[in-house]
Amino acid sequence: MPEKLRVIQMGLGPIGQRLVQYLAQRPAVELVGAIDIDPQKTGMDAGLLSGTRELGVAVSADAVSALQLDAQIVILATGSSLVHILPQLEACLRAEKSVVSTCEELAYPFADHPKISAHLDDLARQRGVAVLGTGVNPGFLMDALPLFLSSACQQVAGVEVQRHQDAAIRRLPFQRKIGAGLSPAEFASQYQAGQIRHVGFAQSIRLIAHAFGWQLDQVEERVEPVVAEDPTSSTFIQVAAGQCAGLRQVGRGICKGKTLITLELEAYLGHPNPRDTVIIHGQPNVTSTIQGGVDGDIATCAMVINALQALRNARPGLRTMAEIPLTHWFGA
Amino acid sequence: MPEKLRVIQMGLGPIGQRLVQYLAQRPAVELVGAIDIDPQKTGMDAGLLSGTRELGVAVSADAVSALQLDAQIVILATGSSLVHILPQLEACLRAEKSVVSTCEELAYPFADHPKISAHLDDLARQRGVAVLGTGVNPGFLMDALPLFLSSACQQVAGVEVQRHQDAAIRRLPFQRKIGAGLSPAEFASQYQAGQIRHVGFAQSIRLIAHAFGWQLDQVEERVEPVVAEDPTSSTFIQVAAGQCAGLRQVGRGICKGKTLITLELEAYLGHPNPRDTVIIHGQPNVTSTIQGGVDGDIATCAMVINALQALRNARPGLRTMAEIPLTHWFGA
Repeated sequence: MPEKLRVIQMGLGPIGQRLVQYLAQRPAVELVGAIDIDPQKTGMDAGLLSGTRELGVAVSADAVSALQLDAQIVILATGSSLVHILPQLEACLRAEKSVVSTCEELAYPFADHPKISAHLDDLARQRGVAVLGTGVNPGFLMDALPLFLSSACQQVAGVEVQRHQDAAIRRLPFQRKIGAGLSPAEFASQYQAGQIRHVGFAQSIRLIAHAFGWQLDQVEERVEPVVAEDPTSSTFIQVAAGQCAGLRQVGRGICKGKTLITLELEAYLGHPNPRDTVIIHGQPNVTSTIQGGVDGDIATCAMVINALQALRNARPGLRTMAEIPLTHWFGA
Repeated sequence: MPEKLRVIQMGLGPIGQRLVQYLAQRPAVELVGAIDIDPQKTGMDAGLLSGTRELGVAVSADAVSALQLDAQIVILATGSSLVHILPQLEACLRAEKSVVSTCEELAYPFADHPKISAHLDDLARQRGVAVLGTGVNPGFLMDALPLFLSSACQQVAGVEVQRHQDAAIRRLPFQRKIGAGLSPAEFASQYQAGQIRHVGFAQSIRLIAHAFGWQLDQVEERVEPVVAEDPTSSTFIQVAAGQCAGLRQVGRGICKGKTLITLELEAYLGHPNPRDTVIIHGQPNVTSTIQGGVDGDIATCAMVINALQALRNARPGLRTMAEIPLTHWFGA
């Protein structure tokens, strides 16, 4: 048996707490430290705080000390903005810990943040550790999965991904984030304010293009409301006819006027046919569908934990899902 | 741009020739050598022999000399039996070349050939190169793909794969291998003689179990004919009612009397619903279907070529698809 992976959890918000719950179910992984800046959490047992069994790990607000613990990897779940989490990332790397993060921008940061990316890559190589951003999307359904499916192809001319979700079964924050229950005018204004939108399309598009060796001239995104024709609802939200039930977001990677990559997210209350479909236009064509779609709340945390083992065997540096060993569930 | 991958093709039978055709279409790869023991092929241009353009690479029967060429990787397509190809593998590793092979037994050789596996692993590590067996099956549909889909799961209790194929559109040797056109008695006798059967189920089952950390007590396989109720046919073969249209093969990985892994291949003339389906029983459940199924003739060769880049970044040693970086198509 390989020795247990020793992990520090940094960030104990809703996602961080779910990660701790999941870590507690994995015999191959041991939580040895927990970090959060919220003074109300300091000193609490990370397991009890997270709604699972007592784990004997007290939450610390002192990241610098906690990062000195004997661990191989830090799970960083403190935000979506790379600039915001940068000091935390640097602290982890300086403590010679590899990092798996839920930060969407970290899934492929090289295009939007070339200087920060080069800096993180240098720092990680110097310290002999690896850094990865992953999750269900970006990290799996719209990038790594189409990439892996393309393994069966001798030629690839284009990629389409369709993630169609019935948002009625998701958490309230997700339903809010897609604009369910808003009027079209409210949707437009919240979209302008940056409150409505899935983050990660550009990262997924650039990750695919880079792995395939495609030079993109343009990456564009478009978000529009899905307006309910009939009243619909979830446990949390009532949507009248004419109000927004959710959104449709489309991202495109374009080369010389030709769309090579199309990512489409439809997430609204009452979607009649939830599914995740990947279409590789190539030789051969490959169309793969996960009926019902992958549960995003579970899968984001599962992806992060399942990447721990692969990251341990990855080459040092700032890595993407296309560069680390194949991730998979692991049990005992 | 990364420099071109320099590749030697060893074995120029039907699969080897298709590999050369495909290599000729890949700008990122350069064929620098070609080896085959058939004296009728010696000296011929490997490209012309393979039905593609002239590549300026003459086929050599002298493997030892040809392996001294400046190349990083050998593609070995000379057989399904590990014992049979062992001397060729050793010669490649001693020449400090990594190897990707279509040899089905090499996809996961550790259980059936532990001594040979340890020897190859040692030799590859000593020479700083990596060895991999891959293809569409084993190598992708029944092992690496279910493994990768499990990345989205926090728990996995079982795996099922169903590969259902309409054999009427496949090559004649494939139709022969599944027993199409035989009487049930002929099928039984050819099966006993080892002529009917897909090789690779045991390797796929053990690869999944190893990656998941499952200890299997038993791996079993069963093959039965699919008898035509009505006459059916392909371009090559007429099947009368009561004759065999193909086969159904089921492999199981069992732990303490419980089946954890089930692989099912149905391949017969006129299959009404060809598809490749992976079912992960877990949290969440994931059911993924490729409608029509993946074209096996193209995909086996594509998998081998698409693994070249990943293998170059793999750790030295005898590796599986679960240990090398995520494979994907690559273009320019």
